[in-house]
Amino acid sequence: MSHAKSTHPSTAPLAIGIDIGGTKVAGGIVDGDGAVVHRARRDTPERSKSPKVVEDTIVSVVEELLAQDADVTAIGIGAAGFVDADRATVVFAPHLSWRNEPLRDALSRRIGLPIFVDNDANAAIWGESRFGAGVGESHLVMVNLGTGIGGGIVLDGKVVRGRHGIAGEFGHMQLVPDGIRCECGNRGCWEQYASGNALVREARALMDNHSPMVTPLFAEICGGHDVLTGPVITEAAQAGDLLARELLAEIGRWLGIGIADLAAALDPGVFIIGGGVSAAGDLLLEPARETFRRHLTGRGYRPEARIVAAALGNEAGLIGAADLARHDANP
Amino acid sequence: MSHAKSTHPSTAPLAIGIDIGGTKVAGGIVDGDGAVVHRARRDTPERSKSPKVVEDTIVSVVEELLAQDADVTAIGIGAAGFVDADRATVVFAPHLSWRNEPLRDALSRRIGLPIFVDNDANAAIWGESRFGAGVGESHLVMVNLGTGIGGGIVLDGKVVRGRHGIAGEFGHMQLVPDGIRCECGNRGCWEQYASGNALVREARALMDNHSPMVTPLFAEICGGHDVLTGPVITEAAQAGDLLARELLAEIGRWLGIGIADLAAALDPGVFIIGGGVSAAGDLLLEPARETFRRHLTGRGYRPEARIVAAALGNEAGLIGAADLARHDANP
Amino acid sequence: MSHAKSTHPSTAPLAIGIDIGGTKVAGGIVDGDGAVVHRARRDTPERSKSPKVVEDTIVSVVEELLAQDADVTAIGIGAAGFVDADRATVVFAPHLSWRNEPLRDALSRRIGLPIFVDNDANAAIWGESRFGAGVGESHLVMVNLGTGIGGGIVLDGKVVRGRHGIAGEFGHMQLVPDGIRCECGNRGCWEQYASGNALVREARALMDNHSPMVTPLFAEICGGHDVLTGPVITEAAQAGDLLARELLAEIGRWLGIGIADLAAALDPGVFIIGGGVSAAGDLLLEPARETFRRHLTGRGYRPEARIVAAALGNEAGLIGAADLARHDANP
Amino acid sequence: MSHAKSTHPSTAPLAIGIDIGGTKVAGGIVDGDGAVVHRARRDTPERSKSPKVVEDTIVSVVEELLAQDADVTAIGIGAAGFVDADRATVVFAPHLSWRNEPLRDALSRRIGLPIFVDNDANAAIWGESRFGAGVGESHLVMVNLGTGIGGGIVLDGKVVRGRHGIAGEFGHMQLVPDGIRCECGNRGCWEQYASGNALVREARALMDNHSPMVTPLFAEICGGHDVLTGPVITEAAQAGDLLARELLAEIGRWLGIGIADLAAALDPGVFIIGGGVSAAGDLLLEPARETFRRHLTGRGYRPEARIVAAALGNEAGLIGAADLARHDANP
Repeated sequence: MSHAKSTHPSTAPLAIGIDIGGTKVAGGIVDGDGAVVHRARRDTPERSKSPKVVEDTIVSVVEELLAQDADVTAIGIGAAGFVDADRATVVFAPHLSWRNEPLRDALSRRIGLPIFVDNDANAAIWGESRFGAGVGESHLVMVNLGTGIGGGIVLDGKVVRGRHGIAGEFGHMQLVPDGIRCECGNRGCWEQYASGNALVREARALMDNHSPMVTPLFAEICGGHDVLTGPVITEAAQAGDLLARELLAEIGRWLGIGIADLAAALDPGVFIIGGGVSAAGDLLLEPARETFRRHLTGRGYRPEARIVAAALGNEAGLIGAADLARHDANP
Repeated sequence: MSHAKSTHPSTAPLAIGIDIGGTKVAGGIVDGDGAVVHRARRDTPERSKSPKVVEDTIVSVVEELLAQDADVTAIGIGAAGFVDADRATVVFAPHLSWRNEPLRDALSRRIGLPIFVDNDANAAIWGESRFGAGVGESHLVMVNLGTGIGGGIVLDGKVVRGRHGIAGEFGHMQLVPDGIRCECGNRGCWEQYASGNALVREARALMDNHSPMVTPLFAEICGGHDVLTGPVITEAAQAGDLLARELLAEIGRWLGIGIADLAAALDPGVFIIGGGVSAAGDLLLEPARETFRRHLTGRGYRPEARIVAAALGNEAGLIGAADLARHDANP
Repeated sequence: MSHAKSTHPSTAPLAIGIDIGGTKVAGGIVDGDGAVVHRARRDTPERSKSPKVVEDTIVSVVEELLAQDADVTAIGIGAAGFVDADRATVVFAPHLSWRNEPLRDALSRRIGLPIFVDNDANAAIWGESRFGAGVGESHLVMVNLGTGIGGGIVLDGKVVRGRHGIAGEFGHMQLVPDGIRCECGNRGCWEQYASGNALVREARALMDNHSPMVTPLFAEICGGHDVLTGPVITEAAQAGDLLARELLAEIGRWLGIGIADLAAALDPGVFIIGGGVSAAGDLLLEPARETFRRHLTGRGYRPEARIVAAALGNEAGLIGAADLARHDANP
Repeated sequence: MSHAKSTHPSTAPLAIGIDIGGTKVAGGIVDGDGAVVHRARRDTPERSKSPKVVEDTIVSVVEELLAQDADVTAIGIGAAGFVDADRATVVFAPHLSWRNEPLRDALSRRIGLPIFVDNDANAAIWGESRFGAGVGESHLVMVNLGTGIGGGIVLDGKVVRGRHGIAGEFGHMQLVPDGIRCECGNRGCWEQYASGNALVREARALMDNHSPMVTPLFAEICGGHDVLTGPVITEAAQAGDLLARELLAEIGRWLGIGIADLAAALDPGVFIIGGGVSAAGDLLLEPARETFRRHLTGRGYRPEARIVAAALGNEAGLIGAADLARHDANP
């Protein structure tokens, strides 16, 4: 590779962060303050494509970034999926063909820079903890409400990855015995009650049953069963629609219940709520906070964790991955 | 104080561990292999007694131990209750008059040795992790089934205490929405389904309702409502009684459900089950393991944490407290 | 007995109704329009008293009534407890010493009039169905929210008593698997979620835990743990207190869920809500109606039962018992 | 129509019963002992066909039967769907094009015999009550486990139809708050836990998740996801397969819970279990009985309803419809 000369004035070393999601591979050069100073992105290759194609895509993003500023000391990759405890291998990625993919070594051979691989939720909480909604906190839990629930944990200022690298799978904690069936095969998983999918499923059930709860405004903004999405429900809620607000509040209440469970176990200082549904802001978070307070044992007598919206949006993973790589390469 | 001359041959420094429980203050001198080489114990002062009386009791135990071997480098205290994040103050102890008691400094003034204070469950998991059922594991979760559920967490070889020092309160995770009322004010808390109290409560309910499930053997061994205790139920189960086995299996199944939730969040290598009910061994643990396996998302595809009985019995807390103090004093 | 001469002008025969409750034995002469034209009452004998004492009390009430108007053709007794399918024997009465008490025959020997014995809830729904909130309906279900839940069923204009005379025990339908323990030995019984006892228990739990939900107004009106009662909570709700209203709404929501279950099974035209808690009126019934509508399968497409408050208050049982006796004696 | 001369020796009048199901229109001439002496059947017309086509099919079956024995006094029709309280109109039939179809009058115009129309579950329980598993009982509840749960009620020897003709919809009683979503739009309906569909769904979930619970025998007998049916699961269970037995036992346990709720409300002498799943016999019914006993309030102190398998199989509806028609025409 030929690299452009760095023109960045900062003294802190630059790092590249790459976030590999279901639809986009997003990359950026991140400075020591967490600012993304250059960006590049590609479509995520389809699941049928070989691991080599995905690797090529990543290398292509890296090269485009290095062409803009070559003064980069490390590259961090955040990927949806299970990453092993050594941070070298992607054991399983739901959107890609990777199965036990030795991503770190494969990329190291092609890019002459230290590579750091982590789960995308770990990258995101690290980004939020260093530069976003978690600044100043040493104990954080992040809950991302997307199609399911993803999560990350930082305790004592360190990312918690677990014995096998798969901590933070909050979405499959059972909240309701004999409850709604989850794709994982169990019943009553948290993500069946608090996630973007749950939000859309509940709205569709009401529409399909021609429920009198469906308001004209909701029907107008959200359209029919097939076009209904989480973002339009949020839009309807922000336009004041009562049903949309109730649906978000219901998601929020289940969010608060699960958060109370995590608070009992982990005692963090803050919960950061990310993912697409978190765009609803306080329409989601206020019901969560109220339910959390009601379910928190010792409420009134013990310090309460705050519940806040994520601050870095879609770039939390990219920023966090870069920062983790920088620290790993420059300990 | 006048201290006896040390006669201990080991090169590792000795430490004293003190476990302050609801009925006993148990102390011991613990060597570098986790062996308790000297012991002393007193009754726990009643809750109506002043903090000074409790302090005197601790000092008295320490003096008795130092008289047997003065070559001690640190003292660790494990106490039931909330200990703040600085490990200096007991915020609240259910069995004692302590409220925001500055225990570390108070004892330091009276005993010329480094003092280390921690929650008893943290001390216990540390003891098990260093010398008991968790040896060789870096990521452990301990679940103690006593009157309620207490817990401890070790991740990456370090005790997890949380932002405010109160992590590990697993007993108040909600397993059943609208479930059995807990003394904490909530409903459906885990400890209402898996604990010694739950075991006795269920047995009593059957007796009080003259259930046909009550076998003659159960009635003979366990006696009536008032004399029924967890240990006699375990005794009946070990004698082959079907009802006692079913009651323990029910506790075990709820244990397995909660453990699956913790596994999803924390991904430990091992769960260590302690507390009085764990004396039932596999009569409790086999149903827990089976339920755990059924509830674990990704079962068959992800490494499974082991579920084992604690190995150090009542002395886990004492041994762990001593070891934590030794490490703290000799980093 | 010597009886006063009847001065009643109506052509319809008069009957006496007696309602035997936990604290009072209330009797009345009831005319053909359901009006109570004469009254008499005694304290209910304590449970330690012999069946003979209870019998004497009933006879004494009857004699006092007959002294006022002797032109009575039948006597109906409504008693809390199980009455057998032949309407002759009280199998069990929770407040009295009766166990398989042959009440009908015992009273017939002492009073020269036809005697009719029934469960008090059956008497009450009959009263409401003939002269109260159920006039004009052929299919009715009554749900009485007192210390527990009692119930009655009228289908096709006839009281449903069941094979063994114990139909209508709605309070022990299980609404929550693994739910709140009931005195009956089961868990999750309806009456643990919707009854006067549930209302008071929930309020006490909040007070005992010093919940921030406890408003100053609630604390002022309802006093402390020991003096808290259902009626004062209703009083607070009617004075506008938010917590009291929320507590009643919660009872109402559970009421609506159970009613939806009964509607699916029995398809009545009306649900009549009686018992002490029903004094809260729409503060209870509106949440019940809303929840009922949401839980009713086929909502919007099938006719919906109405949910109304009972109209006859404490005298429903007495009036109904008299009317049942009159019809039985004058078929 | 031209009718064959009757050769039947019995003195009791003959009647025709017709059972209109999702796939077959089955008819029979039924004598006064409930024996089916002649049979005829047609395929059920597709849902897209007009009501006239269905009517023609029924008339065709009737004519074929009358050609065999013309000495018939009445015709009873049992149809899946809602039949109004006047027994004249089929309000809704899930498998047919009928919407508010005036079936009784339409058929009366074409067939010169008294016509009686009822819901198929009402016809079935009546058949069982008169000639099958319910002989000798006055208070019966029938629970049919098919794709969903259908039900019927007989109290005091009379079919209970409810205010609007739709009593007995037990399948949509809510057994699990926040439970499995039902097609009706609600959550936690009984039929999501105890029905043929539930049985197959649970088995498929285990197969799809490659559960270690799936035994080789089960895989061999039941095949894969697409070919799995309720009857083959029953076959596997009868061949001794452990998973199949556990799956049926789970259905049975939920059956027992719902039955206990119905027993509390209705106090029948017997529950008759019909529908396809009931072919599993005691593999289903024993777990139901055990759970019923455990959930029945006052167990040990009150008479317990029996739980028995239906005796008339597929012909219960046909036999019951004929008998209802005969009684209606010859009161």
